[in-house]
Amino acid sequence: MKKMIIASTSTVHGSSYLEYLLPTLKTHFNGVKQLLFIPYARPSGISYDDYTTTAKNAFSTINIDVKGIHEFENAKEAIQDSEGIFTGGGNTFELVNQLYKNDVLSTLKQVLDNGTPYLGTSAGSNICGLNMKNTNDMPIVYPPSFTTLGCIPFNINAHYLDPIEGSTHMGETRETRIKEFHVFNEAAVLGLREGSWLEVVDEAVFLRGKLTARLFEQNKQPIELKSGGLIEF
Amino acid sequence: MKKMIIASTSTVHGSSYLEYLLPTLKTHFNGVKQLLFIPYARPSGISYDDYTTTAKNAFSTINIDVKGIHEFENAKEAIQDSEGIFTGGGNTFELVNQLYKNDVLSTLKQVLDNGTPYLGTSAGSNICGLNMKNTNDMPIVYPPSFTTLGCIPFNINAHYLDPIEGSTHMGETRETRIKEFHVFNEAAVLGLREGSWLEVVDEAVFLRGKLTARLFEQNKQPIELKSGGLIEF
Repeated sequence: MKKMIIASTSTVHGSSYLEYLLPTLKTHFNGVKQLLFIPYARPSGISYDDYTTTAKNAFSTINIDVKGIHEFENAKEAIQDSEGIFTGGGNTFELVNQLYKNDVLSTLKQVLDNGTPYLGTSAGSNICGLNMKNTNDMPIVYPPSFTTLGCIPFNINAHYLDPIEGSTHMGETRETRIKEFHVFNEAAVLGLREGSWLEVVDEAVFLRGKLTARLFEQNKQPIELKSGGLIEF
Repeated sequence: MKKMIIASTSTVHGSSYLEYLLPTLKTHFNGVKQLLFIPYARPSGISYDDYTTTAKNAFSTINIDVKGIHEFENAKEAIQDSEGIFTGGGNTFELVNQLYKNDVLSTLKQVLDNGTPYLGTSAGSNICGLNMKNTNDMPIVYPPSFTTLGCIPFNINAHYLDPIEGSTHMGETRETRIKEFHVFNEAAVLGLREGSWLEVVDEAVFLRGKLTARLFEQNKQPIELKSGGLIEF
């Protein structure tokens, strides 16, 4: 009985950390007193402690305490015993690297599959898919594998960006990058724009937020999915 | 006696493939009749044949023939016997993956260190650095290692982009990504804007083109390097 929120970003432009999600999180984590925070992705390279404080401050406004996974002696047990889990954004390569180094990927999958409520933002959302091959992040470290949780049967491209009209930059658009992915991989990819999130209820996945999301399947034209709808293919 | 051109991009906005570099390439590859082309990076997933044709068409205007490495029976020998080598852009992960799979990385390094004239653009430039950890590309395949040629003693960030003023997008800027790299890595990184290239003459590296380039060193403020100057740190 999965119960997950998989968000494109922690922060939408012009509002504070997690602010746009707090009403949703209040319901989602109803009854949870202490949340386990996984700070491994270290945005801008900040320390685990500083990152955990950021999460703690946001969740204090809905009366939920936050403790970082690094504050526990045994990371696996921390995951097994947790009432709820939040993996923050940052660098997906380093996040996945640390999940492997701390040998917690399979434990995390187990508790999420069994219903421990979860929040992922950005890198913390990328890891919910089959693998991390659609991250936008820079490969600053070499993880032992790109395989991730596979709690949903497709991949996430967080912070999805539409091609910028009139841009003179010659770097690949996001759509081109995902098309290149499909030359080598079969998995579907969902481009989640900032402000969008997925709500996973057992095996059902719903698109939430105001925006549409862009679904890329191998050998098919990409399509826009409506908010509120079930994601099926 | 290295002799390399390491370009940020193959194409600048508003001109055709390699057009802005052709006068330089005419001198650089002076005396070369046939260039060996490495099409492994497959931009937009195009075939090796199609990609080689693109390179062939551009070089025909300066009377140089082009043959793809995939057209040779033995890739290592093709590299050893070549008069000049061009590695095109595309996806750096797949490029590095194929360099390892075809076991040609060390051979390529050897001939470049010994003076076979080289052109790299974009992904083909990223591989000239110590490792590919500053690519902007999507990790669509998992290469056996991120270690690359190390023909220059630093890393390249091709298609370097300055932060976009007034952007509402919450994804990391290029500068933030490189700062995250320096939390885990010591290597200096040169942000090469589109239209810039490096000229490597033995151990000397000069910045060419009209623009400045941005040098990032660990625990230092980034600085702008002037075109024409020697790159030292």
